[in-house]
Amino acid sequence: MTIRIAILGAGPSGLAQLRAFEAAGKAGAELPEIVCYEKQSDLGGMWNYTWRTGLCAHGEPVHGSMYRYLWSNGPKECLEFADYSFEEHFGRPIASYPPRAVLRDYIMGRLEKSDLRRCIRFNTAVQWVEYSGETGKFSVTVRDMKADELSTEEFDYVIVATGHFSTPNTPYFEGLEQFPGRVLHAHDFRDACEFTGKDLLLIGSSYSAEDIGTQCYKYGAKSVTFSYRSAPMGYDWPDAFREVPLLLRVEDRTAHFADGSQREIDAIVLCTGYQHHFPFLADELTLRTHNRLYPENLYKGVFWLDNPKLIYLGMQDQYYTFNMFDAQAWYARDVILGRIALPDAAAMAADAAHWVAREEAAGDPSAHIDFQAAYIRDLVGPTDYPEFDIEGMGELFKQWTRDKQADILGYRNKSYRSTMTGTLSPPHHTPWMEAMDDSLEAFLADPDEVQEPVLRKSA
Amino acid sequence: MTIRIAILGAGPSGLAQLRAFEAAGKAGAELPEIVCYEKQSDLGGMWNYTWRTGLCAHGEPVHGSMYRYLWSNGPKECLEFADYSFEEHFGRPIASYPPRAVLRDYIMGRLEKSDLRRCIRFNTAVQWVEYSGETGKFSVTVRDMKADELSTEEFDYVIVATGHFSTPNTPYFEGLEQFPGRVLHAHDFRDACEFTGKDLLLIGSSYSAEDIGTQCYKYGAKSVTFSYRSAPMGYDWPDAFREVPLLLRVEDRTAHFADGSQREIDAIVLCTGYQHHFPFLADELTLRTHNRLYPENLYKGVFWLDNPKLIYLGMQDQYYTFNMFDAQAWYARDVILGRIALPDAAAMAADAAHWVAREEAAGDPSAHIDFQAAYIRDLVGPTDYPEFDIEGMGELFKQWTRDKQADILGYRNKSYRSTMTGTLSPPHHTPWMEAMDDSLEAFLADPDEVQEPVLRKSA
Repeated sequence: MTIRIAILGAGPSGLAQLRAFEAAGKAGAELPEIVCYEKQSDLGGMWNYTWRTGLCAHGEPVHGSMYRYLWSNGPKECLEFADYSFEEHFGRPIASYPPRAVLRDYIMGRLEKSDLRRCIRFNTAVQWVEYSGETGKFSVTVRDMKADELSTEEFDYVIVATGHFSTPNTPYFEGLEQFPGRVLHAHDFRDACEFTGKDLLLIGSSYSAEDIGTQCYKYGAKSVTFSYRSAPMGYDWPDAFREVPLLLRVEDRTAHFADGSQREIDAIVLCTGYQHHFPFLADELTLRTHNRLYPENLYKGVFWLDNPKLIYLGMQDQYYTFNMFDAQAWYARDVILGRIALPDAAAMAADAAHWVAREEAAGDPSAHIDFQAAYIRDLVGPTDYPEFDIEGMGELFKQWTRDKQADILGYRNKSYRSTMTGTLSPPHHTPWMEAMDDSLEAFLADPDEVQEPVLRKSA
Repeated sequence: MTIRIAILGAGPSGLAQLRAFEAAGKAGAELPEIVCYEKQSDLGGMWNYTWRTGLCAHGEPVHGSMYRYLWSNGPKECLEFADYSFEEHFGRPIASYPPRAVLRDYIMGRLEKSDLRRCIRFNTAVQWVEYSGETGKFSVTVRDMKADELSTEEFDYVIVATGHFSTPNTPYFEGLEQFPGRVLHAHDFRDACEFTGKDLLLIGSSYSAEDIGTQCYKYGAKSVTFSYRSAPMGYDWPDAFREVPLLLRVEDRTAHFADGSQREIDAIVLCTGYQHHFPFLADELTLRTHNRLYPENLYKGVFWLDNPKLIYLGMQDQYYTFNMFDAQAWYARDVILGRIALPDAAAMAADAAHWVAREEAAGDPSAHIDFQAAYIRDLVGPTDYPEFDIEGMGELFKQWTRDKQADILGYRNKSYRSTMTGTLSPPHHTPWMEAMDDSLEAFLADPDEVQEPVLRKSA
């Protein structure tokens, strides 16, 4: 009987899994029956921008945390697929920090001609997954959101590829309910122009705060105040920026901070992270973790220890992204196809515990990058995923952290060399702070034809 | 064996059901075992204001569509409980149009000393309800959101009291994804001060549009444009307001309307209504309806025809509100207690069809008010809910529609006579347009002590 596999989500992780099976199929393997459920109406996951916030047209939570004018905050050379380079996709070298639409095009382009696209059932939200020890199968109940109908199917494997940047972690601060302006989580941030001329307060000191703050400044925010819990980001900020300790309370428009300072603000963005959230999974199947490099109870970072036919992709805190998802997907595929045998439960638990301990011993970003490189190396070895210079890519990550430290508003103007093709990326035609148009067309425009910075019509 | 009842939601409808049982208990009836599941951390449903939008702290959709500075848009005399007057609650007559906090206090005050409050399980979201023909029972699976644990219990009756103003209906308009400002549904509207000095576009011509538009004007919006699908509201608007036909598309900041006109705007509020949405109910239990006075397939407007042990409260489009929920809850209680026998399925279907046809024959607001009065009269008759002047209250509704037509920004300064106590409400100490403080304390302040309009500190 044909093995049946459910992939939950058609974002970068789910697409990596489809690509892994496609590659095996092209090489002659007999493929299992695959169904990929996708809540949105197109593939791409987080990389599909939506203007919607909160709930979608069918009343389901909006998946996307993507906002307009988002440019990659890491070099594209660090997220390149080993089996499909940027040069192959775009037909020529492109600059190192592309905007969202360019990355989306790249991710989706790899699956453009794939037969496996037909496995994807769009507008279909997973409602409930449970496992029966008797049958040895998962039953997956989904809602066809257009027809508003539920249906249930059985599967031998379930691959959870729903991401972990969709359910906001939204702490309360005293006075928020009385603040006379907008209070939002980064998940609901969409358009920086809303905050032109405003004094913005961002709670948080990680990627969301840094990127939303710098972007709002780029689009005309009057001032940006970051409030941190443990430590400031410490970049060499322009005068309009300020880093202060944690927000204690808000009184009318005045924000009071832990160091006794205060500031008048117009809007508050909670850049306070995301929760791993799987409301569609039975309790005993549910991964519970904070955002870390090696969540517990996952052998090889993907197989659920209590039931390894449940596979989680991309649940790690991430330096490496798309190619790490690939490494996981190729490994998962080979286990499903019987090419790799899983060890017994005790051995899997011991291996996972070993990696967890190793993560906990890694003390700084550089060690974290090395840790994740070693993790990917461990996955890639036994599969036929194309060999790539994982450690060399790690050096790029370290260079990137130094470039950011040197110039937080200018690091996106840097160029890096692809570890896949060896090509040094060309500089972009427009410095990031002046590139207001984030479209694919503007990014790919011939530098000779860009006479002046591409400015927004209304600017 | 004791009958077990699950009430889903502790808002106005769920609390009406608890109050109905409490009244029977006090009169000596033996009560069934009742469990009321409430997603929020307090009772009051929609009347609990939350600053949160989108998803709650536990990742569940935020129930509340409530915004700051909301004042009742109908006279409190039209929503008064027949068994608990405003005068009884506040100890004296109060003005006719109270702000949210006052109404919340009133709704919650009725249950203040009730033992049945102990039935409510807060922070508990209903995940799944299904019915077994074999056992004749419902199984209700809920998530304790604080513990993040699922559990399932069986019930003889399920009463759905989750409201129908929580899941936004959010249509797409061309260009929304490119609009350089905030786009939100009324469900996510929280604080008018965010829009001070802005040119606002509101899509819709019903209560949300009217109330959010007037409130934003009150708090300093520069202009308010309403865009209607079928007909303008037609009030005598001040110069800052405009009513235009449906939005065709947005280009940059310019909104283009069906009459060829255009307008520069800063933000867009979709006041496009709500969906009846019950993602936690099995398909065969799910009410599917648009917002109407008599949804189909509900005997007496509450009993699910296919399985009358499933009861829906408050699913109607509403003139009457709190006392209509009471009428429904008292009737449902009496059926559960065996005091009223349901007729056979055919008779129930015929009765429901009769009311649906009668609604469809009612052609204007006045006829709709009469229709809903007749519906409530039909419910109240066989129960011991205190007799009240339903038709007299209908006349108040008609007076209210005339008062709004005469003065859309001033109608809240009017006074009406309670049909329960006979008392004519005193005028409020401050005209609505000048009453910026919407707190209970400000509203209830002694008129002699209010020296001048209570203005916001930052005003």
